[in-house]
Amino acid sequence: MTPLAVSIGDPAGVGPEIVAKAWDARASRGLPPFFVVGDARSIARVWAGPIAEIDDPQAALDAFDRALPVLTVHDAGEITPGVPDVEGARCALQSLELAVGLVRSGAARALVTGPVAKIHLYAIGFEYPGQTEFVAERCGIAGENAVMMLAGPDLRVVPMTTHVPLSAVPDLITVDLVLAKARATARGLTRNFGIERPRLAVAGLNPHAGESGALGREEIEVLEPAIAQLVAEGLDVTGPYAADTLFHPRARARYDAALCCYHDQALVPIKTLFFDDGVNMTLGLPIVRTSPDHGTAFAIAGQNRAEPGAMIAAIAMAAEAADRRAASGI
Amino acid sequence: MTPLAVSIGDPAGVGPEIVAKAWDARASRGLPPFFVVGDARSIARVWAGPIAEIDDPQAALDAFDRALPVLTVHDAGEITPGVPDVEGARCALQSLELAVGLVRSGAARALVTGPVAKIHLYAIGFEYPGQTEFVAERCGIAGENAVMMLAGPDLRVVPMTTHVPLSAVPDLITVDLVLAKARATARGLTRNFGIERPRLAVAGLNPHAGESGALGREEIEVLEPAIAQLVAEGLDVTGPYAADTLFHPRARARYDAALCCYHDQALVPIKTLFFDDGVNMTLGLPIVRTSPDHGTAFAIAGQNRAEPGAMIAAIAMAAEAADRRAASGI
Repeated sequence: MTPLAVSIGDPAGVGPEIVAKAWDARASRGLPPFFVVGDARSIARVWAGPIAEIDDPQAALDAFDRALPVLTVHDAGEITPGVPDVEGARCALQSLELAVGLVRSGAARALVTGPVAKIHLYAIGFEYPGQTEFVAERCGIAGENAVMMLAGPDLRVVPMTTHVPLSAVPDLITVDLVLAKARATARGLTRNFGIERPRLAVAGLNPHAGESGALGREEIEVLEPAIAQLVAEGLDVTGPYAADTLFHPRARARYDAALCCYHDQALVPIKTLFFDDGVNMTLGLPIVRTSPDHGTAFAIAGQNRAEPGAMIAAIAMAAEAADRRAASGI
Repeated sequence: MTPLAVSIGDPAGVGPEIVAKAWDARASRGLPPFFVVGDARSIARVWAGPIAEIDDPQAALDAFDRALPVLTVHDAGEITPGVPDVEGARCALQSLELAVGLVRSGAARALVTGPVAKIHLYAIGFEYPGQTEFVAERCGIAGENAVMMLAGPDLRVVPMTTHVPLSAVPDLITVDLVLAKARATARGLTRNFGIERPRLAVAGLNPHAGESGALGREEIEVLEPAIAQLVAEGLDVTGPYAADTLFHPRARARYDAALCCYHDQALVPIKTLFFDDGVNMTLGLPIVRTSPDHGTAFAIAGQNRAEPGAMIAAIAMAAEAADRRAASGI
């Protein structure tokens, strides 16, 4: 067995605190051995528990019961929680890079990434839209083929478009896009969650899913043909559904993932329901990668106020997915 | 005291059943006297309880304890639940029209409207986008000045645009629109809910509320100037906020109503959280008007499966608002 690798994220954010609190919860939440890639000092500054500095991922297995294993890749120096700086950004990027490499090489079995502040990464020359695209490229996958899925205890959503202005969304929703996202989602649900025949529900773009064309034609011209083709391929895809009635408890029980047309259509329900324990999982990669579905939260960093629920859920989901992939060989 | 008037909606839908079940719950839920405007036969067909046919709203006060008072305006004949027809549409429209008139005249103190199927109303010459615009016109108000608010136990949302294609939304979000909707919402919260200084939160149009312009400029060019003007007028308006983090429990506690840019931005959170007891209240009218926030549900009509929660909540909210208006005189 190998441990999971958790990149620390921005050391001035809540990353150090939530990963340490996740270790505190290792027994009660049944978490498997993991180690932090990052900076031991930034953890010690916000957490009084035991730290085991390690040089080798395998050493995490021995240390995990008694201490939080940390593989220091870049000492970020005297960072003040809540005050990001260039050294912290360097630490975040180097820890991400090493963690990906360790998972790719097989020295760690899954990747969990702590939250970063993109604006500070840009200041040191990072040129990707986010961590997801960086991880994808390091895995030899084009960023656009990596699929972002957000998951809570009983809801998974995939935004088919992400960080673009709302006005750009209608033109971006094409048959090809829906086909690519649906296929990657179905395959990802099978690989990572063991769902043999995933049920995908497609949300309409317009109110009431267009009401037969009266409130917009994208459902008729794009979503319906795409769904028909996916069904012809043997996938269990239904819709388009009115988005407003797709996320209440009885509706959520009818599908394994909802494919949404734009960022807020996916993110509003998941964050409304599961603000403290939502997980972001990247599908379409050769490795398992998850992250807590929240940001650096600089405003509360270092105050012992950060909730570790999402980090705990991200570690647990990554471990389960890695086990499932290893068992099934896909 | 006068009773509340409940228009039956389409008699082939769930309207007759949910209003009867609301009467069943009158004691346990503390509902004040109300009467149905519609068709006694369509209720008797789906409910075995006692009906008191009345000719005058005032008679409802005496009858209410022992029977559901019904003022029959149009006998819809032998309607089959789940199978809408022209006679049912006539009954729905005439009951709506009479109920509005009774509230306008003071014979009833608030209006609750049962669900209708617009397509069947159109078949008999109805020319309004929905019941709201019809009610507004009968009250001497232009339809566009009536504001739709959806309310659940701890969330109120106002969609600033409603039944239009998503691609039309960005151009419709203007400073004037935001000003009009915010002012009407603030006034409505004061009149109907007694909130002296309502806190309004404005949701951004774009992901992350535009991220300082990187993901869209409507926040900078429209929403921020509108909010600044509203604040200058003395209103408590904040935002624009990222929509995805505006609806979790801690966020909801920070405002009295969220102003949303489009239909699903408002309807997804309310229906995700409060699918069975959401209420639609029309603000900006001289009368109090609410309705259950769901449709005719023809698929389950007549099967004793309809949940009356939203109708009960609509009656209770209308009664409270009417009391508050009467007490404050505004």
